[in-house]
Amino acid sequence: MEGDLQRAVGRNLREYRLARGLSQEAFAEVVGVHRTYMGGLERGERNLTLKSVERIAERIAVDPLELMHIPPD
Amino acid sequence: MEGDLQRAVGRNLREYRLARGLSQEAFAEVVGVHRTYMGGLERGERNLTLKSVERIAERIAVDPLELMHIPPD
Repeated sequence: MEGDLQRAVGRNLREYRLARGLSQEAFAEVVGVHRTYMGGLERGERNLTLKSVERIAERIAVDPLELMHIPPD
Repeated sequence: MEGDLQRAVGRNLREYRLARGLSQEAFAEVVGVHRTYMGGLERGERNLTLKSVERIAERIAVDPLELMHIPPD
């Protein structure tokens, strides 16, 4: 469904952050985005480009395809 | 590397098209993009959004993650 990928990215980023006990603000710095952007990103509201996904994935050293992988419930 | 994903999409689309013996023009209609856009897409020059990838993948009934998968040489 359209939007599934960006929602998967958001969910995976949130899981990654919580697993490390980081605040959204601290994580925004890690990822290299503005802190006000981070919330929308985690909620899957940002229509990311492939290059943005690659940049974010590189910052947290994960595979970009893994970052878009829809996690099982 | 930044741009790898869009190049993978381009390469996979091209392979898909050639395997079916379609012209770029005919394939552009299948994919739902303008024929002048198709060349740049296949050359991996378009910085696609995740939603665009989903739309294209749906048109040709493939998994969007498969479409971004970097094929081995």
